[in-house]
Amino acid sequence: MSINQKEMEEQFINYVKKIGAYNEALALIYWDLRTGAPKKGVDQRTEVIGVLSSELFELSTSEELESYLTVLSEESIQAQLSPITRKTVEEMKKEFDRNKKIPAEEHKEYVMLQSKAESVWEEAKEKADFSLFQPYLEKLVEMNKRFIEYWGHKENKYDVLLDMYEPGMTVAVLDEVFLDVKDKIIPLVHKIAASKNPPTTDFLYQTFPAKSQEAFSLDVLKQVGYDFDAGRLDKTVHPFATGINPGDVRITTKYDESDFRVAVFGTIHEAGHALYEQNISKELIGTPLCTGTSMGIHESQSLFYENFVGRNLAFWKHNYEALKSFANGQFDDVSVEDFYRAINESKPSLIRIEADELTYPLHIMIRYEIEKGLFDGDFEVKDLPAIWNEKYQSYLGVVPENDGEGVLQDVHWAGGSFGYFPSYALGYMYAAQLKQVMEKDIPDFDALLEQGNLLPVKEWLNEKIHRFGKMKKPLEILKDVTGEGLNAQYLIDYLYKKYSDVYQLDL
Amino acid sequence: MSINQKEMEEQFINYVKKIGAYNEALALIYWDLRTGAPKKGVDQRTEVIGVLSSELFELSTSEELESYLTVLSEESIQAQLSPITRKTVEEMKKEFDRNKKIPAEEHKEYVMLQSKAESVWEEAKEKADFSLFQPYLEKLVEMNKRFIEYWGHKENKYDVLLDMYEPGMTVAVLDEVFLDVKDKIIPLVHKIAASKNPPTTDFLYQTFPAKSQEAFSLDVLKQVGYDFDAGRLDKTVHPFATGINPGDVRITTKYDESDFRVAVFGTIHEAGHALYEQNISKELIGTPLCTGTSMGIHESQSLFYENFVGRNLAFWKHNYEALKSFANGQFDDVSVEDFYRAINESKPSLIRIEADELTYPLHIMIRYEIEKGLFDGDFEVKDLPAIWNEKYQSYLGVVPENDGEGVLQDVHWAGGSFGYFPSYALGYMYAAQLKQVMEKDIPDFDALLEQGNLLPVKEWLNEKIHRFGKMKKPLEILKDVTGEGLNAQYLIDYLYKKYSDVYQLDL
Repeated sequence: MSINQKEMEEQFINYVKKIGAYNEALALIYWDLRTGAPKKGVDQRTEVIGVLSSELFELSTSEELESYLTVLSEESIQAQLSPITRKTVEEMKKEFDRNKKIPAEEHKEYVMLQSKAESVWEEAKEKADFSLFQPYLEKLVEMNKRFIEYWGHKENKYDVLLDMYEPGMTVAVLDEVFLDVKDKIIPLVHKIAASKNPPTTDFLYQTFPAKSQEAFSLDVLKQVGYDFDAGRLDKTVHPFATGINPGDVRITTKYDESDFRVAVFGTIHEAGHALYEQNISKELIGTPLCTGTSMGIHESQSLFYENFVGRNLAFWKHNYEALKSFANGQFDDVSVEDFYRAINESKPSLIRIEADELTYPLHIMIRYEIEKGLFDGDFEVKDLPAIWNEKYQSYLGVVPENDGEGVLQDVHWAGGSFGYFPSYALGYMYAAQLKQVMEKDIPDFDALLEQGNLLPVKEWLNEKIHRFGKMKKPLEILKDVTGEGLNAQYLIDYLYKKYSDVYQLDL
Repeated sequence: MSINQKEMEEQFINYVKKIGAYNEALALIYWDLRTGAPKKGVDQRTEVIGVLSSELFELSTSEELESYLTVLSEESIQAQLSPITRKTVEEMKKEFDRNKKIPAEEHKEYVMLQSKAESVWEEAKEKADFSLFQPYLEKLVEMNKRFIEYWGHKENKYDVLLDMYEPGMTVAVLDEVFLDVKDKIIPLVHKIAASKNPPTTDFLYQTFPAKSQEAFSLDVLKQVGYDFDAGRLDKTVHPFATGINPGDVRITTKYDESDFRVAVFGTIHEAGHALYEQNISKELIGTPLCTGTSMGIHESQSLFYENFVGRNLAFWKHNYEALKSFANGQFDDVSVEDFYRAINESKPSLIRIEADELTYPLHIMIRYEIEKGLFDGDFEVKDLPAIWNEKYQSYLGVVPENDGEGVLQDVHWAGGSFGYFPSYALGYMYAAQLKQVMEKDIPDFDALLEQGNLLPVKEWLNEKIHRFGKMKKPLEILKDVTGEGLNAQYLIDYLYKKYSDVYQLDL
């Protein structure tokens, strides 16, 4: 590499770090807005976000960046770059090309549409009136279709959107796994509905003071290996985790005093996300590679902790006494086995974010089928409420009373996020696949949980997944760890085993 | 004004708002660093600060800004600008000229020196070893002397530094008021030392749980009219207030469980700062005028609330029962009058930030005399420890055992802040002057405090001071409100009256 090339590589890295700095400042501002920024300061804060975001957009689409990317993407030069720089160039170029292909005017129009659509959606949801939201959703779909044309596509247009959240994922793959899910999970849901041995759950809904829930949540976070020197726990309306940098990965949770599960499982879920972000290799700091590789892999980590750890009997054998000591007596007459059955109750329901482990994938599948239909041209926006209700009836046996608890329940579409929903189900399937390999390396998984020793689990995930950040693509990680591609069978097996146990079914 | 000029004014305002946005983002980052940012994320956050600060410096010294300022400062155009734009141009030009006159290389050297000097100072203070810090302080003084030459000065070089914190303030004025203070306060300190009726104070130092102190502090904040929809209270090692924007003015305090006064008076003090920032006219948002007009006027607000409200007997007649209810019985046998005397105990001491109302101005005077001597050429840095100790002996009758509790106690000089200290005493004198005028408009001041009705006081300060932000200079405010210039007599009168009461002296 010539001196000039070396210099350019350095300039490029500095340029990338500058972009990273803007992203980090914005991440902190968003965290603050959600955790307690005084409401009268919000309008002005929005101006600040506007200024920093435009600067960020300019940095991400500038001629300076284009010239770095052009030179550093040349084959002869690429070969001489460090792996991190090479991958950074690749990531930045993908993003740059995507941004550049959309005419500036349309980009601006789209940003304004998103913002308007979100506030209209809020009103429409509250009033349970789809007709308010319909024209905005139509416009969002239409613009996304146009963008897909700008970006270019192969056989399936929807693949282009999937790729934004889960690089490499396609309709062909998803159709297959969701067919498996449909064929296997729906019958199980029916069997459970007919079960004569449902768990008793009334004791779950006693008053559990928020302060005590917090104390227990903090204990659990320590146990899973969340690093408090690189994070903090706050309270919000909707729990989330945010990786501001790997040394600053914050979690929030929500305390419902009449249902402790919201905080406990919410915290464990967000801890899964946080452990990922906290353990990305320090070499990647300041590059766009310093984050989870995809929404699906991210969700595999949160769901792994929430379900495979947090809803596991062995975990509660260790933690049940502590939970009892923080509670006001609500579990005193309940065995840990009955407690375990209660927290694993499954019931078809209308609201995705309140769904249990078993029915959750069906909620996702419905959204996937609808999105695919919209971009295939099979469905029209105006028909979505009817389609939604019909699918809920058919897969889950429940029908929303109104669109507020139906097709309007999620914010994603209002934000223009089409192709995002499948990540939730993918994460779940990935998690089951990872778990099955992990058990080969850590055969005493349950025994460790029963001892409260979660360190080997965390280290395994650090080693196999976390440290790579975006250096590996999601399907590359899956292949490297499990030796195969996406496979729904592991999740199905897990659910059959678990629910035959919880509901004492003979499957 | 021509269309082009109108357009330029708009572009200028947008440019200024952009600068404001960077300042706001940085203010939030600094608040976060002090209130609980995870320590492992700090290094990376420092990088972010670096990127945003350089961008801010570039924006503040750019040719684009220069061209706006040149055109908009022309007399014929100035006259056609709105008052806010005109004042904004004036403020920005002052700052711009100051920055531009220092060669970029020296600016960079100075920033690095400040940062290094602060960490050396920390070590020197801990080891109580002035010799470690001496070369850095010498260099800081030397560079400031050079800057003064670049900036230009009239008779007194130190005036240039004073003007940075208190526009318009001069050595000529300060010499006079500090002479008054010296002549009147030192004899009072001696009389108090010889008093036969010192207050009993042992009951102050009982255990008062932090949570209860917080609850009481929140009550007091509500009472003074702090707007919680435009602020929040957090916990830090050193209390502070920060105006991120007028709708987001945050306070922090510190809880010492064996001395509740730290939190209570700390909170009231910071509330005084916060009320100022919360009540600046909304028209000024996004301009550099949207902040307190000077350090001195800012301190007048905090000290007004801390001393004239918080250490007032009438205030405690209203609040003493509430304080008792939060405490663990420590005040049960103490009358409100004895409580009032106890919280107003005065004793010469070594540490400025722990000093009482009466001796505090003497601590400031010592620092003022030393700074003036350094820039006059009367004093040399190497002699400061001896000079310091001699002045403490002479004015306060106490001598530090080592330089850690002497000349090294404050961080200001390590940060290159020469000319800042006088603001503390100025604020105190301003507050006494304002109080005396306020009493003409609100003759039932004490009665209102006794009813817990602090709204008229807040509204008076809003009307006379707060709303103007930087639209008026400090001495302009003083003149407009009191009809005169700086005058130490009001403070002296107040202190004589108060302490003759507390110590039952016959003066």
